[in-house]
Amino acid sequence: MALEVVSSTPVDAPQATPLPVRSGFGCQRGRRRVRITPHYGDAVREVEVSYLWAGAPGAPTVIVQGGISADRDVCASDAVSEGWWSGLVAPGAAVDLNSYRVLAIDWLSAADLGTSAVSSHDQAAVLAALLDDLRIARVAAFVGSSYGAMVGLAFAADHGHRLERLVALAGAHRPHPLATAQRAVQRGILRFGLESGDVAQAMSLARQLAMTTYRGADEFAQRFAGEPAFRDGRFRRPVEDYLEHAGARFVGRFDARRYLSLSESIDLHEVDPAAIRVPATLIGFPSDRLVPLADLCELQRRLGAGASLEVVESLYGHDGFLKEIPSLAPLLREALECCGE
Amino acid sequence: MALEVVSSTPVDAPQATPLPVRSGFGCQRGRRRVRITPHYGDAVREVEVSYLWAGAPGAPTVIVQGGISADRDVCASDAVSEGWWSGLVAPGAAVDLNSYRVLAIDWLSAADLGTSAVSSHDQAAVLAALLDDLRIARVAAFVGSSYGAMVGLAFAADHGHRLERLVALAGAHRPHPLATAQRAVQRGILRFGLESGDVAQAMSLARQLAMTTYRGADEFAQRFAGEPAFRDGRFRRPVEDYLEHAGARFVGRFDARRYLSLSESIDLHEVDPAAIRVPATLIGFPSDRLVPLADLCELQRRLGAGASLEVVESLYGHDGFLKEIPSLAPLLREALECCGE
Repeated sequence: MALEVVSSTPVDAPQATPLPVRSGFGCQRGRRRVRITPHYGDAVREVEVSYLWAGAPGAPTVIVQGGISADRDVCASDAVSEGWWSGLVAPGAAVDLNSYRVLAIDWLSAADLGTSAVSSHDQAAVLAALLDDLRIARVAAFVGSSYGAMVGLAFAADHGHRLERLVALAGAHRPHPLATAQRAVQRGILRFGLESGDVAQAMSLARQLAMTTYRGADEFAQRFAGEPAFRDGRFRRPVEDYLEHAGARFVGRFDARRYLSLSESIDLHEVDPAAIRVPATLIGFPSDRLVPLADLCELQRRLGAGASLEVVESLYGHDGFLKEIPSLAPLLREALECCGE
Repeated sequence: MALEVVSSTPVDAPQATPLPVRSGFGCQRGRRRVRITPHYGDAVREVEVSYLWAGAPGAPTVIVQGGISADRDVCASDAVSEGWWSGLVAPGAAVDLNSYRVLAIDWLSAADLGTSAVSSHDQAAVLAALLDDLRIARVAAFVGSSYGAMVGLAFAADHGHRLERLVALAGAHRPHPLATAQRAVQRGILRFGLESGDVAQAMSLARQLAMTTYRGADEFAQRFAGEPAFRDGRFRRPVEDYLEHAGARFVGRFDARRYLSLSESIDLHEVDPAAIRVPATLIGFPSDRLVPLADLCELQRRLGAGASLEVVESLYGHDGFLKEIPSLAPLLREALECCGE
């Protein structure tokens, strides 16, 4: 997602300039260069990472990451009036910015890394290198949703000594093959658009397809039961207007090659649960068709006794992590209470 | 689907020439002109219908119709060595061609009717007009699967006096809005291909998307759990090869505008269950995500006491009607036993 950088740190500055954005908490929102060895590369690369680090000065840090279309703007700041998870990350909220600092990055694409593909392990490595640069030895928790949960699992496996607790929502140790199939078609549409020259229409269609996988089946049934109407030369059921609107809103917000790369990264994701020795809270939604609850059950079993699985009923399918704020708040509070300072 | 017409009746012939194709049963495979008033039209139209009528001479007729990509070749004949439902429609099979004659048509598209869209009620009207032309007063049963079930429901509502029993597999009185959403994206891909000029690639992608909706989630999980492999410049999970193969096989077999029209017809489908007074057997698959079992339960409830609902466990989702031959055979036999001659 392209966002204006309100507070940009010079890329080679040794320390970003803190920027107070809400009374009582500090905020750094800038860019830094870090060095990682990419999973699909054979040498150390320097990459630029855009990040947000905001909350009570000196408080412990919680990493919060969302889906592939989410960005570092998890919470409100001077840069944005509302973050994508403002209901859960704010002063007084479940991730209480009076007691914690939140750290979040914009995902890196394969182009950013100069590699053929980007791994969830690369995103974890970038976060670990950023912690070094920010002189954060250890974080209280990694709270990841969707692709963010996959990266959280990779972080817990690769950098577990820097993490007290993993909270993974609607994400597992591997993608489900049906979800892979649905994303593969989205990528096919995007490549088709890049070849034919009409990238905007391809982006819209890929997003429309994605929307059919994010939301709950019962939600579709309840919202879109209406009659077809004849308009612009053809019949349309109400759900078609919804999809076209969602597709159009996405065009221009996201680069097609970046979408291709991050979508592929989900389908390349693989973490051995046995490599994770950090206590974990898994949160799943029974109506999530993209990440079936059965896969979270398997993950919990393979993670061993240190993992709890919380099941949150929701009408909203995979997007439950964005919609079920009142149900998620106590679960996040409880998970963070387990973390010492 | 384009098929060579092996036995074509002159379109204006008063009676098609019977053609024996298997010892002991006769077969007509040809074309006739019938007159209907299309649902989205305001005048009587003459349309050409391609049909198959095969089985024991003089035996009662059973209409059998499949999904939008199925054709009149339900069973083996001199035209095809295998029909799309040969396991259930053959001499000695559940729809026993020693005791019955099967009647099936190629679906009509909006272009065939000269209208803006084609209704499931139009297909039913064409079948009823064809019965007139073939001098069949009444059929023993209408066995329809998927779109064929929708047309069967329309036939039972509009021409119930010509039908002893309806057998509807994996189809309901209206489409589910999530399934409509998935088909709307397929149609968006097809229109995109027609505009950009690369219809073949669009057809492949639309079919790939359709495949993700036809098959079961557990089937995908079991068949395609393999590792990604790097090939032709990018990583691929096994399911991507499967999808691309399925897409490629479809290209050339089906015309894009015909696909658009029949896909839309599914989403325009609507039958009032209260208008149906014919005994009905409904058959559903719990793994079918396109036609959820809950929708068949609602249909059964609204059809009243005359309808039974048979639930067939299957790994194969919506395609259970093509795959679960051993489980379906006794259900079809039982349904047909209820029909007098």
